[in-house]
Amino acid sequence: MMELTPMAQVTFDRLKEKIATTYAQHGYLHIETPSIERSEILLAKAGGETEKQIYKVVKTAETADEADQALRFDHTVPLARYVVEHENALSFPFKVTQIARNFRGERPQKGRYRELYQCDVDVVGRSSLPLYYDVDVISTLLETFESFELKTPVLARINNRKIISGLIDFLGLKEWEDLVFRVIDRSEKVSAEETKFVLREAGFPEDRMMGLLEFIGIHGRRTKVVEQLRGLGVTNEEFLMGVKELDEVMWLLEEAGYRKRITADMRIVRGLDYYTGTVFEFILPAYRRVGSVCGGGRYENLAGNFSESNKFPGVGGSIGLSRLFYIIEAEKLLPVAAEKALKYAVIPLSEAEVPYAMRVADTLRAEEGAATSVIVMDKRLGERLNYAAKIAEKAIVIGENEVTTGTWEVREFN
Amino acid sequence: MMELTPMAQVTFDRLKEKIATTYAQHGYLHIETPSIERSEILLAKAGGETEKQIYKVVKTAETADEADQALRFDHTVPLARYVVEHENALSFPFKVTQIARNFRGERPQKGRYRELYQCDVDVVGRSSLPLYYDVDVISTLLETFESFELKTPVLARINNRKIISGLIDFLGLKEWEDLVFRVIDRSEKVSAEETKFVLREAGFPEDRMMGLLEFIGIHGRRTKVVEQLRGLGVTNEEFLMGVKELDEVMWLLEEAGYRKRITADMRIVRGLDYYTGTVFEFILPAYRRVGSVCGGGRYENLAGNFSESNKFPGVGGSIGLSRLFYIIEAEKLLPVAAEKALKYAVIPLSEAEVPYAMRVADTLRAEEGAATSVIVMDKRLGERLNYAAKIAEKAIVIGENEVTTGTWEVREFN
Repeated sequence: MMELTPMAQVTFDRLKEKIATTYAQHGYLHIETPSIERSEILLAKAGGETEKQIYKVVKTAETADEADQALRFDHTVPLARYVVEHENALSFPFKVTQIARNFRGERPQKGRYRELYQCDVDVVGRSSLPLYYDVDVISTLLETFESFELKTPVLARINNRKIISGLIDFLGLKEWEDLVFRVIDRSEKVSAEETKFVLREAGFPEDRMMGLLEFIGIHGRRTKVVEQLRGLGVTNEEFLMGVKELDEVMWLLEEAGYRKRITADMRIVRGLDYYTGTVFEFILPAYRRVGSVCGGGRYENLAGNFSESNKFPGVGGSIGLSRLFYIIEAEKLLPVAAEKALKYAVIPLSEAEVPYAMRVADTLRAEEGAATSVIVMDKRLGERLNYAAKIAEKAIVIGENEVTTGTWEVREFN
Repeated sequence: MMELTPMAQVTFDRLKEKIATTYAQHGYLHIETPSIERSEILLAKAGGETEKQIYKVVKTAETADEADQALRFDHTVPLARYVVEHENALSFPFKVTQIARNFRGERPQKGRYRELYQCDVDVVGRSSLPLYYDVDVISTLLETFESFELKTPVLARINNRKIISGLIDFLGLKEWEDLVFRVIDRSEKVSAEETKFVLREAGFPEDRMMGLLEFIGIHGRRTKVVEQLRGLGVTNEEFLMGVKELDEVMWLLEEAGYRKRITADMRIVRGLDYYTGTVFEFILPAYRRVGSVCGGGRYENLAGNFSESNKFPGVGGSIGLSRLFYIIEAEKLLPVAAEKALKYAVIPLSEAEVPYAMRVADTLRAEEGAATSVIVMDKRLGERLNYAAKIAEKAIVIGENEVTTGTWEVREFN
């Protein structure tokens, strides 16, 4: 895990607090789900790579009634279980947020952690969910990044999986669907030559190669992209629906004031995940190489593995806070906070002044809400002041005179 | 785990927030430690019962370099490791708080959870730590309970382990020390007859039985208790030091305004734990049967297992929030919050009004910081208002007229 010193933790906590506040202001209800779930629940949706990363949990003194358990690796699977279990206590559309650690048995490396904070928003509908909520999720996440006050703005790259699925169908490429998704997903990391090579190796039809590559290259402003896509002459219904949805989602975001923060991009597919409509990824354009700092999309049926009676379509997104914090620190994306953890250090000169010092501290907490410590140390005053200067902005020294007169004096540290 | 509905979660989060705020205002720095630690670290201090409750963690795809790992069962062991590892980045006395879930492989039952929130404050010194910090910890925890605004006040029962250790030494009862601690710890749950029976069974000397029982019965106001203890005629140095410390800690708490919230009590020993001085437990006197809702004490050497070069004396306490929340809900100790999660639900009459509705919501968030949702549903207005009434205090319906005139009207739900 990323273990921080108390000062770095202050910055981390502030970002986490801004996420929680922005999500709440946008109407997302906070829930908490267990870290430990039965393995069969967690593994219902997990595929190869995920399964390898799952931590199993075993009691030291095994008892017979203990089911096979593991640590959750994301918030989506526990959310699906939660929605089905508490269905009758919820109002749909259910706008929900989870901000907590997930667990992945990765080999630890820079910016990748085994315990990582993920901050999810989701809107879950019962049987249906208007397209508007795709906009609600993306705008909430954009506002959240806005609240961070990073030195560099974020850009949401948006796509719709129906466009690529419809195209694949239209071009008769069904048997290469997985390959196409994988190739698109990697297209920014490798050269066009390498992409072609991979497609050829897999026996992808040469006559449709250039068409696919041209399609992948489409990105930019909504109006331009929509025009280019319509110009491809694809008559497939799913494709056209995808273009219409992308157009609508982006138009609404523009209307809501995010014109400069969004772009359409056919390279965004979100891997082999379960998304079925809108997909998006946020990047910091000035730090493109660090990759995505947020992502999500629309899924047809959240709880397919847990409920047969109801369908729960949803749309959601997640900020990987641990990784984002690593990037923010490494690239110095926040103004350096010279702040200290405490406002006041109250220092009684001798034991006799401790009760009065405690009362002064109480007054400062009650009247200013100020973080305040009373400092008692078996050390000379100079050393006590050195300690106070490290942790607090201001010092208040309490001697006999202050006690008698019922006053105190605030000294600023420089 | 205790999994809550979104409305109950609001109450839980509010209590957690009050804890975090009060701890911070009293100068405790927040840190986070990993949930997963190497087993040898976690087990260094654990004895029988604890060890049985530890969850081991195993990667599904085991790799050779994977050390034996487990989930932490409290915050104290990770804190000890943290202090030794980050010693040079910290200022001592180090006032620190951890508010997070711990993991215990208990058989789940009412009020006992496998994943439980514990909210710790600790002050760790390097080589020495003034007695004042015992007062700092207890008063911070008392203030925290104050901030909950429960219908019933809390009472801190305070003792000092040196008193009982010194007495045991003075009476030549060293070989029965563990038994005496265990008997005292259980003395409130069983009759005096049963206590005597247990002592007799173990061969405890009959001539010192009544003395011990009389001692256990001492509790009440500081001045009375100190007088009774001094009246026992025990000349042991540790005993006298314990009485002096208890007197001083309680006197300072009285001076700081907690006279009505504290009592001295020889029955408080905190089991067989590693405490060496002040020990305390909070109860809700009106709900005595639910037992302790907070506890802690002073320990001589926090990091004895991790550092040989330095001694880290400490004092700390912990609120078991999951259990406390269970009690608060079961006994209805909070005024019923009729509150809803959202302040405003903004309802556009048709799709055409969605952009304006989003702008209204943005204005309410920016100007009032109000939690606000835009409601879009393929349902009649009546149903949308019903949904809005469930989640929000007020509704704002946006039609053509509002868009044209740039106005809106707020309706209160009753």
